[in-house]
Amino acid sequence: MATYKAPIRDMMFVLYEVMNADKLPEMESFEEATRDLVEPILEEAGKIAEEVLFPLNRSGDEEGCIWSDGKVSTPTGFKEAYKTFCEGGWTGLACDPAYGGMGMPKAIDSMIAEMICSSNLSFGMYPGLSHGAYHSLHTFGSDDMKDMYLPKLVDGSWSGTMCLTEPHCGTDLGLCRTKAEPQSDGSYGVTGTKIFISAGEHDMTENIIHLVLARTPDAPEGIKGISLFIVPKFIPDDQGDAGEANGVTCGSIEHKMGIKASSTCVMNFDGAKGWLVGELNKGMRGMFAMMNAARLAVGMQGLGLAEASYQGAVEYAKERLQGRSLSGVKHPDKPADPIIVHPDVRRMLMTQRAYIEGCRAMGAWVAEELDISRRHADDKRREEADEFVQLMTPIVKALFTDLGFECTNIGMQVFGGHGFIREHGMEQYVRDCRIAQIYEGTNGIQALDLIGRKMPAKAGRNLRRFFHPVQDYIEKYVMDEEMGEFVQPLAKAFGRLQQATGQLARVGMGKPEEAAAGATEYLRLFGLVALAYMWCRMVEASKDKADEDESGFYGAKITTARFYMEKLLPQTNSLFASIMAGGASMMELDEELF
Amino acid sequence: MATYKAPIRDMMFVLYEVMNADKLPEMESFEEATRDLVEPILEEAGKIAEEVLFPLNRSGDEEGCIWSDGKVSTPTGFKEAYKTFCEGGWTGLACDPAYGGMGMPKAIDSMIAEMICSSNLSFGMYPGLSHGAYHSLHTFGSDDMKDMYLPKLVDGSWSGTMCLTEPHCGTDLGLCRTKAEPQSDGSYGVTGTKIFISAGEHDMTENIIHLVLARTPDAPEGIKGISLFIVPKFIPDDQGDAGEANGVTCGSIEHKMGIKASSTCVMNFDGAKGWLVGELNKGMRGMFAMMNAARLAVGMQGLGLAEASYQGAVEYAKERLQGRSLSGVKHPDKPADPIIVHPDVRRMLMTQRAYIEGCRAMGAWVAEELDISRRHADDKRREEADEFVQLMTPIVKALFTDLGFECTNIGMQVFGGHGFIREHGMEQYVRDCRIAQIYEGTNGIQALDLIGRKMPAKAGRNLRRFFHPVQDYIEKYVMDEEMGEFVQPLAKAFGRLQQATGQLARVGMGKPEEAAAGATEYLRLFGLVALAYMWCRMVEASKDKADEDESGFYGAKITTARFYMEKLLPQTNSLFASIMAGGASMMELDEELF
Repeated sequence: MATYKAPIRDMMFVLYEVMNADKLPEMESFEEATRDLVEPILEEAGKIAEEVLFPLNRSGDEEGCIWSDGKVSTPTGFKEAYKTFCEGGWTGLACDPAYGGMGMPKAIDSMIAEMICSSNLSFGMYPGLSHGAYHSLHTFGSDDMKDMYLPKLVDGSWSGTMCLTEPHCGTDLGLCRTKAEPQSDGSYGVTGTKIFISAGEHDMTENIIHLVLARTPDAPEGIKGISLFIVPKFIPDDQGDAGEANGVTCGSIEHKMGIKASSTCVMNFDGAKGWLVGELNKGMRGMFAMMNAARLAVGMQGLGLAEASYQGAVEYAKERLQGRSLSGVKHPDKPADPIIVHPDVRRMLMTQRAYIEGCRAMGAWVAEELDISRRHADDKRREEADEFVQLMTPIVKALFTDLGFECTNIGMQVFGGHGFIREHGMEQYVRDCRIAQIYEGTNGIQALDLIGRKMPAKAGRNLRRFFHPVQDYIEKYVMDEEMGEFVQPLAKAFGRLQQATGQLARVGMGKPEEAAAGATEYLRLFGLVALAYMWCRMVEASKDKADEDESGFYGAKITTARFYMEKLLPQTNSLFASIMAGGASMMELDEELF
Repeated sequence: MATYKAPIRDMMFVLYEVMNADKLPEMESFEEATRDLVEPILEEAGKIAEEVLFPLNRSGDEEGCIWSDGKVSTPTGFKEAYKTFCEGGWTGLACDPAYGGMGMPKAIDSMIAEMICSSNLSFGMYPGLSHGAYHSLHTFGSDDMKDMYLPKLVDGSWSGTMCLTEPHCGTDLGLCRTKAEPQSDGSYGVTGTKIFISAGEHDMTENIIHLVLARTPDAPEGIKGISLFIVPKFIPDDQGDAGEANGVTCGSIEHKMGIKASSTCVMNFDGAKGWLVGELNKGMRGMFAMMNAARLAVGMQGLGLAEASYQGAVEYAKERLQGRSLSGVKHPDKPADPIIVHPDVRRMLMTQRAYIEGCRAMGAWVAEELDISRRHADDKRREEADEFVQLMTPIVKALFTDLGFECTNIGMQVFGGHGFIREHGMEQYVRDCRIAQIYEGTNGIQALDLIGRKMPAKAGRNLRRFFHPVQDYIEKYVMDEEMGEFVQPLAKAFGRLQQATGQLARVGMGKPEEAAAGATEYLRLFGLVALAYMWCRMVEASKDKADEDESGFYGAKITTARFYMEKLLPQTNSLFASIMAGGASMMELDEELF
């Protein structure tokens, strides 16, 4: 059976022993985010995840959402769980206190996001999308808009969506056809069809606030003629409550491979009343603000599902008796040994563990820098942190979701045939995780964003935000007696990353297609090096504590780091070779020969 | 939308231009398997796959099987399709003419198996299981048994199953508890519960013949006390027709991630009448005969689904307009270029192609040797072929299904968000393919079989059946002007395989656990080298024809080979490094620290 316990011990280790979460309260408006407060918040969130969300995960998948006559019902129990979730203040955890939020740092919020994704990803989509809408409005909305909408998004009584995709355009939003006609009252009449709208319609909130990309009549063609509009399902009345119904309806919901309890809607806008958010024709800016946050959040989905799958796999591997250990019978009192004694099962569990714990640390690193980029007192430090976050966003999104998919498949494999049976819950993690590699920009698009935008930006300055600290770290520790074992493989892999970076930067200038041909492998190479750096940092934080630690926690970190360096990091060899081989053989074949 | 056309051109290329299918008719009882006959047979099978099976694939998935009061209904249309399938003689294609079969070689049969898996894997499970039962009975059954059961299995009026797994035992069949009590009439009373029984109950045949592993009262413990019994659902009457109902019932069916139109049954045997097949306590022998054939068949499932996914992805990539080519607009008349112009989409399609065509050739090689092992006039040649097949069976099973899963996921990724929607059919391939990595021995078990049984067997003689021809090939072509480009990377990867083999053989003698720790990576390394050899053979077969070939078929082979060597084969680097690092870090952690 699937099982879930929030990994709070590891989260606290990452925040306070590896990263610098103890410095968060030094920043403006994070004063309350002290360790004393953070730990009980994580524990409280853990309880919600374990006791409220997780029990609805399987039933939500079986039941799914139901569309009837424009209305969507969420599965049994979701409404009540959402109420509990709002009452606990979780919808406003990382929101501005000026609008009723708790103002918690992203570093803490993203740990809780992981728990929500582990326990019930479909559920998490609803507040997740609301938070995206909150973020865009908070950044680009007028003061009136903020006063009207943000308190409701923060307390969860209203929810939000992002309406980008249309039947003929996803990645290429320049093809967007939804129209916004200016009205005499300063509003716009929005008309068009949007698809794949998560949380577009459901029964958990009083109102739903759609943020819609559309084009005004005289807008320039392509991406430069797209504006962002806010289109509420019910138009707020004078008291600010949900009033008259707007011209937006849910035409149908999709039948999907996974996240079945998350409604994925076709939304028809038929002269719906909307208001411009930010400047005309600058809609992509608002969307990108939302999308960057969303991409980090999707990364956490991969991590969260990997963790849930790992926990299920470990429990099963300890209970399932099958075969005998190759190094001699381990449980002579039982008819067979538990399968955790078998090397191949170990390989699977250790792989999950090494990826999960590495990603958790990496996610915390990026989240902490995101907090710094927003709140640090020093301008330069803020800018540098922003450059780092820009660089790492596509890596977190693609790496965490690709590894998340790998890890959920490993968890299922540990269960053998039982993993394929729905009842045990392991295959649901695989199906739920699969979408994370696709939405918010497919992982191929993340790789292009990395090499096409983030790498060349500011003459490579973003890159330096990663390369410099890692380089310094390697120089400091490569000859260290204890750390050398771990830092030397990091140094080798880092050398490959540097060389591959030089190669892609060079060819990218003259032949962007040739650089793009190596993008996916490059992103993975980058991600694996970043994880290696995280593992070194975790060893550094653990090595002096391991001997006296009866729990074995720190010793396990060191062993897992060793496994990562010996068994997983070597993948950088082949990625490097593949990148350096160039893209000619990939592009040569005529279209009609496929 | 998913689409499928049987890849007959490529199959004929593999059989007659790369392999030696033209020599098949030289062997006893394959006299009729001439090229003139084989091509129309493939075409006819292609039609059945495209026109009868494929149209039921999506609807079968949506509808699934339904259990009611011990009876199982297959989805709408399956019964009729099965009837058409039997009438065409497809159930008996590779069966003994003495029992009504067509006696076609495995090399041909496995091409047709690929088509069936591409078009409707769930459907293919029913005749597939029957063939497994046929094979065991044909090898180990008494003459009376054969006369009674084989003609019905061959014409498809009866079907068969393999009843191995029990709730507490899958891989470790020694734990089997099903009992077989000898009766005064020479039969046995079989009692116990079997789970995960594919085709255990359904509505497409008059009778179902279960082959059941069970234990007689005085049998030795463990695997050495297991016997094989034949237990028909209806006991044949004096005319050999399905007579009285036997004591076997279907208790329920499983709700699974995929292959939903294939019934996966809990079978309850309650003193059911059974008859011993082969010798007492030698049941595993019969099962292994069946399992080896089944493992090759499961490999073809991975290949078949990869092919279907590839075809869908190619069609979509040519139609879906999104973005512009980085090397300049390709279709100025359209609002955007088709996504096949983008390097990352190319990378995905080329990866599918390189794996699929490589596996198809490799599958044909193994199938041809299987035919030789059974029918060649020369004893020594037969034995050598058998050694080769023994060696390659776990590799085909695990490699083809792992790559099949990768390829079906790639196909889905090409579709972006549309891939996640059930309607388009791409996600079904992923779900259907996932089980192939698990059943008939998980892929981890295949890897153990390779290093623990097949590698050391006969002092390494099995290994030589692969190593020698590849070594000879390399020596012959490595300096060749045209072939060198392809054979040199093969030679490098082959060198790694040789070294890794030596390493595992050495450590395996003293520390089997240490060797087992590298088993999965070793199997993949082996498989990738085998594919590289196949690609060299395909280049060899194509190079003199490419220039004059207007279709571009041979040129595409050479380009795809280049892609394989440059972009995929480098994975052997990292697999090698990981194997050579040993297994210490994998086994170190205490169980309770997981």
